[in-house]
Amino acid sequence: MSEFKLTSVEEFEQATNELLENGAKVGADAWQFRVKNQTPHCKFGEQGTCCRICTMGPCRITPKAPRGICGCDVHGIVGRNFLRFTAGGSATHSDHGREICHTLHEADPNGNYKVKDPEKLIRIAKEWGVETEGKDIYDLAHEMSELALLEYGKPFGTQRFLKRAPQHTQEIWEREEIAPRAIDREVACSLHMTHMGCSSLPEALVRQSLRSGLSDGWGGSMMGTEFSDVLFGTPKPIETEANLGVMKEDEVNIIVHGHDPSLSEMICEYADDPEMIAYAKEMGAKGINVAGVCCTSNEVAMRRGVPMAGNFLQQENVVLTGACEAIVVDVQCIFPALGPLSKCFHTKFVTTSPIAQMPDAEYIRFNAKTAGENAKAIVKMAIENFKNRKPELVHIPHMKQKATVGYSFESIIKTLDKVTNSQVDQTGTLMPLWQCVASGVIRGAVAMVGCNNPKVRPDTAHIELMKKLIAHDVIIVASGCSAQAAARAGLMDKRAKDLCGAGLKRVCELADIPPVLHMGSCVDISRMMVLVAELAKIGNVNISQLPVVGCAPEWMSEKAVSIGNYVVATGIDTYLGVEPYVSGSTEVTGLLTNGVRDWVEAAYTVEKDIDKLGDAMLARIEEKRAALGV
Amino acid sequence: MSEFKLTSVEEFEQATNELLENGAKVGADAWQFRVKNQTPHCKFGEQGTCCRICTMGPCRITPKAPRGICGCDVHGIVGRNFLRFTAGGSATHSDHGREICHTLHEADPNGNYKVKDPEKLIRIAKEWGVETEGKDIYDLAHEMSELALLEYGKPFGTQRFLKRAPQHTQEIWEREEIAPRAIDREVACSLHMTHMGCSSLPEALVRQSLRSGLSDGWGGSMMGTEFSDVLFGTPKPIETEANLGVMKEDEVNIIVHGHDPSLSEMICEYADDPEMIAYAKEMGAKGINVAGVCCTSNEVAMRRGVPMAGNFLQQENVVLTGACEAIVVDVQCIFPALGPLSKCFHTKFVTTSPIAQMPDAEYIRFNAKTAGENAKAIVKMAIENFKNRKPELVHIPHMKQKATVGYSFESIIKTLDKVTNSQVDQTGTLMPLWQCVASGVIRGAVAMVGCNNPKVRPDTAHIELMKKLIAHDVIIVASGCSAQAAARAGLMDKRAKDLCGAGLKRVCELADIPPVLHMGSCVDISRMMVLVAELAKIGNVNISQLPVVGCAPEWMSEKAVSIGNYVVATGIDTYLGVEPYVSGSTEVTGLLTNGVRDWVEAAYTVEKDIDKLGDAMLARIEEKRAALGV
Repeated sequence: MSEFKLTSVEEFEQATNELLENGAKVGADAWQFRVKNQTPHCKFGEQGTCCRICTMGPCRITPKAPRGICGCDVHGIVGRNFLRFTAGGSATHSDHGREICHTLHEADPNGNYKVKDPEKLIRIAKEWGVETEGKDIYDLAHEMSELALLEYGKPFGTQRFLKRAPQHTQEIWEREEIAPRAIDREVACSLHMTHMGCSSLPEALVRQSLRSGLSDGWGGSMMGTEFSDVLFGTPKPIETEANLGVMKEDEVNIIVHGHDPSLSEMICEYADDPEMIAYAKEMGAKGINVAGVCCTSNEVAMRRGVPMAGNFLQQENVVLTGACEAIVVDVQCIFPALGPLSKCFHTKFVTTSPIAQMPDAEYIRFNAKTAGENAKAIVKMAIENFKNRKPELVHIPHMKQKATVGYSFESIIKTLDKVTNSQVDQTGTLMPLWQCVASGVIRGAVAMVGCNNPKVRPDTAHIELMKKLIAHDVIIVASGCSAQAAARAGLMDKRAKDLCGAGLKRVCELADIPPVLHMGSCVDISRMMVLVAELAKIGNVNISQLPVVGCAPEWMSEKAVSIGNYVVATGIDTYLGVEPYVSGSTEVTGLLTNGVRDWVEAAYTVEKDIDKLGDAMLARIEEKRAALGV
Repeated sequence: MSEFKLTSVEEFEQATNELLENGAKVGADAWQFRVKNQTPHCKFGEQGTCCRICTMGPCRITPKAPRGICGCDVHGIVGRNFLRFTAGGSATHSDHGREICHTLHEADPNGNYKVKDPEKLIRIAKEWGVETEGKDIYDLAHEMSELALLEYGKPFGTQRFLKRAPQHTQEIWEREEIAPRAIDREVACSLHMTHMGCSSLPEALVRQSLRSGLSDGWGGSMMGTEFSDVLFGTPKPIETEANLGVMKEDEVNIIVHGHDPSLSEMICEYADDPEMIAYAKEMGAKGINVAGVCCTSNEVAMRRGVPMAGNFLQQENVVLTGACEAIVVDVQCIFPALGPLSKCFHTKFVTTSPIAQMPDAEYIRFNAKTAGENAKAIVKMAIENFKNRKPELVHIPHMKQKATVGYSFESIIKTLDKVTNSQVDQTGTLMPLWQCVASGVIRGAVAMVGCNNPKVRPDTAHIELMKKLIAHDVIIVASGCSAQAAARAGLMDKRAKDLCGAGLKRVCELADIPPVLHMGSCVDISRMMVLVAELAKIGNVNISQLPVVGCAPEWMSEKAVSIGNYVVATGIDTYLGVEPYVSGSTEVTGLLTNGVRDWVEAAYTVEKDIDKLGDAMLARIEEKRAALGV
């Protein structure tokens, strides 16, 4: 086994620079150039003080113009913008979850989509009070999918999964009137509240932001995660590799990018098809290599060990290698830039979802009924494109790390069971984790999540914070682009235990885990919610008492704000490295960073200095420990 | 009977100026001043070329920066902004409709809300295939309300009311994939499509804008209208008065403002209560006078003849009279300015809905179960506030006009029945109207709708266009703030027939109607959809063949764009006097003003010159006539 060494951000950047040089040969644009064109950003937009909600304006708040034409003040405008931003994210995550529920509705033992984890389906059915005895698993799947879809639009009641939270948390949600009703209703209600001439009271707007966020985290996202597991299997620890070096010079490289596993699972199926592999060989390639970008990558890495080519700000890089036969996308976080960029190379840019249609793309509309043939057509298209590669433009940076991924909640429990003395202790619980935390062997946990953002040196915040935290015996659960940053750096290699403090290192060795646990895609932050809920229950404390915080140091999307809101509303302090568009209002900022604590026992901290951000999280963890007396 | 004369816009403005002088005495702010502070508007916002959808930006498109950081071009940015604007409006209208459905669910023979039009409820139940025979009307109401609420969130299928459209129209909606599914789903889907990294193809974005609009007009708004009629009675022609002169110097003036009749109906009930009137007299007033602003005003004017104090840009004027004891608001189009403004006078600014919470207001939370006591508390508060009036600040412009309002679809049919020879012809149809149109006695119809906007001299476009159109024998159906402009000018006085061309004048005389028919509030544009659908059916033509156009000359809200989209998608050319925020994209503009015609047989025209706007509509009507050969 070769010596283990993290890949540094400098090495990432070196590779990126080489790829940009490669792109320069064919006049390729890249985000690095567009950032320059778009800087400096509009201050009104950045501070949230611009209102375009009606056509009397747009209005911008300044000392000389302290109110919009309707009379709305800066706090109302900033608050409305923040709520809309949240609603955008909540709708997006949840609509992804809806697609999964519709796919479950199409599940068929002889069709494209099957029930791969029937036990999980039965477990959720029981949780929802659905009779399972003697029922065909596909009938149950269809029945459950209809109930799940109704969570989006039922006229009465709140989200079913709220009951997973500790009693105390549920009481807070009820008391504060933030227990989410039907998911889509919270979205529509958010738009209504922010319509011209509706709410301008910051408290009301922030409260609805929390509710809309909760409808995502404990509603749409949680259903997305749970039913993805039912359909595609609940992730288990699995070995994979990460970074651009996973692309192969002598194979057909198909990159899957986006979020919805319904597409990528099918692509993976057909890429493994002997007929397709034979066809690839016929076309001069040695095989077919599927690799992922963004959360689609997380999905197939967690379930299949499919390698991870890169995260959000690497998406152009995969094309810039000149070795990408097709980049196949579904929804969210897909640069429209991929259209024109792919034209500079031989790459096919294939869009597949009515939700994400883009110019300069080949649109192969994907749906559950025709998924097999759609996927086959796409794989074929990629294979046939292999011959169009321009060898002089092929440049794959030989840089990758090993990673063990697949730490679903269920896998974490199973991993812990292995270190439990089953003669003495109950298995199937988080008790060993709680004991590690209570004893101080692990000081606490940080949920590292979120995107990249050019406002932060890409991946640096993710990686540096993780290094700092594990050195202080804080275990990391990671998802989304943060997880990929970790994997690419090497922090999901089990050997990264050597970077940990003594306590966490011992835990890693004992449990045979890396110090950064890959919990999945961005919808899978719902897994983390289940984890903290169960940890609080087993420790007999409130969630807000746990030495656990959330952190999105490089976030950029509306989804991230929706996530932040449900994490905070679940009682977990959340640390951001990029400012949301709220700095223009002292009232909204005050609520988010402090006032909401009175409602939900947690709040946001925004800190752009990475080192200070890490210190703040460590301090908070120790504060929580002290308060708990552990 | 005194001689009839329209009130001119100059007279409106004179009254406003006097009120502003009144306000100056107490340092009152007003929209006229804020417009000056906010002008010129941001060009990026006005043209739709600014993107704040993620925190990599904000990005603004310029010749030097033709793409955002993600690579999105100007067409994608403008298109996404347009779709979000539509979704805001669709969600808002539809959520109002949802509230009505929830109120119907609370209907109780002994409660605050009763079923006032059981026949209509039964008619809709039959239309929806619900068994009505032998069913208690309240049981039916509750059953229907649950079905209606499911229209917001049902997992499968499209809107029930689509079936009201002619077959041809339904086929278009199916063919173009714009038949709306669950209302809230279309909203959530719109946000998902416009999330960072989803759709940037203008065709896709505009198509979803039409679908989201249709879910409003043929979904949420239509249910709002229909079930409001069931609860509060279907409007019938009724006499009322309009303009600030309806306020009374010696009575307690309660202004109801907003959109949802659930509130205003209750306020009206209690204002008529002998106990309350006696209390008012005890407090030194001669009685209680309820008057309305905005669409709440339209609702209670149509059903109760409650006078209309003013439309959108008059809302501050009612407070500036110094004679407003309480301005009671529910949702939408309420100036947050009313909070601070009310503090300059003795006026109580009472917010009542969780959807519209504002600073500087008294919040009396209204809900169906406690509506009676809430309303009583508000009326009492207003009465007790009468003594706080400052006589030196009381200035009510003595200016009002008579108006006949209440032309629901059902009333129009009944009105036509009166001119039908029931011995020869079928009654209960639009045949007489079709015959008038086909014969050329009436040249066509224009649906005049929408708001005020300081970008247009207030009310001028509404009034001048109506005068021009009726002079050319074009009948007007009006709603929202447009209807109120007409009423305040005198165009809903039956004597306004003298301003019509000879054909329309004869029709007005024969049918005993004004030339401008008040069809209700902005959600009631759904009534107009039913009207054109039935007219097309009786004439055996497609909707797009009718000599009918829509016009929103002074619009400002997101709702107006949602409306525009469903009117266009229904096959009716729509004329706007204010530019939507799309001029930055030739592709989006091209689609809206032309391209969509290939999909739905109608499109938008934007024309800021009022005179040219009128000419364009007349020309289009004559074109349609010529094509029909009538």
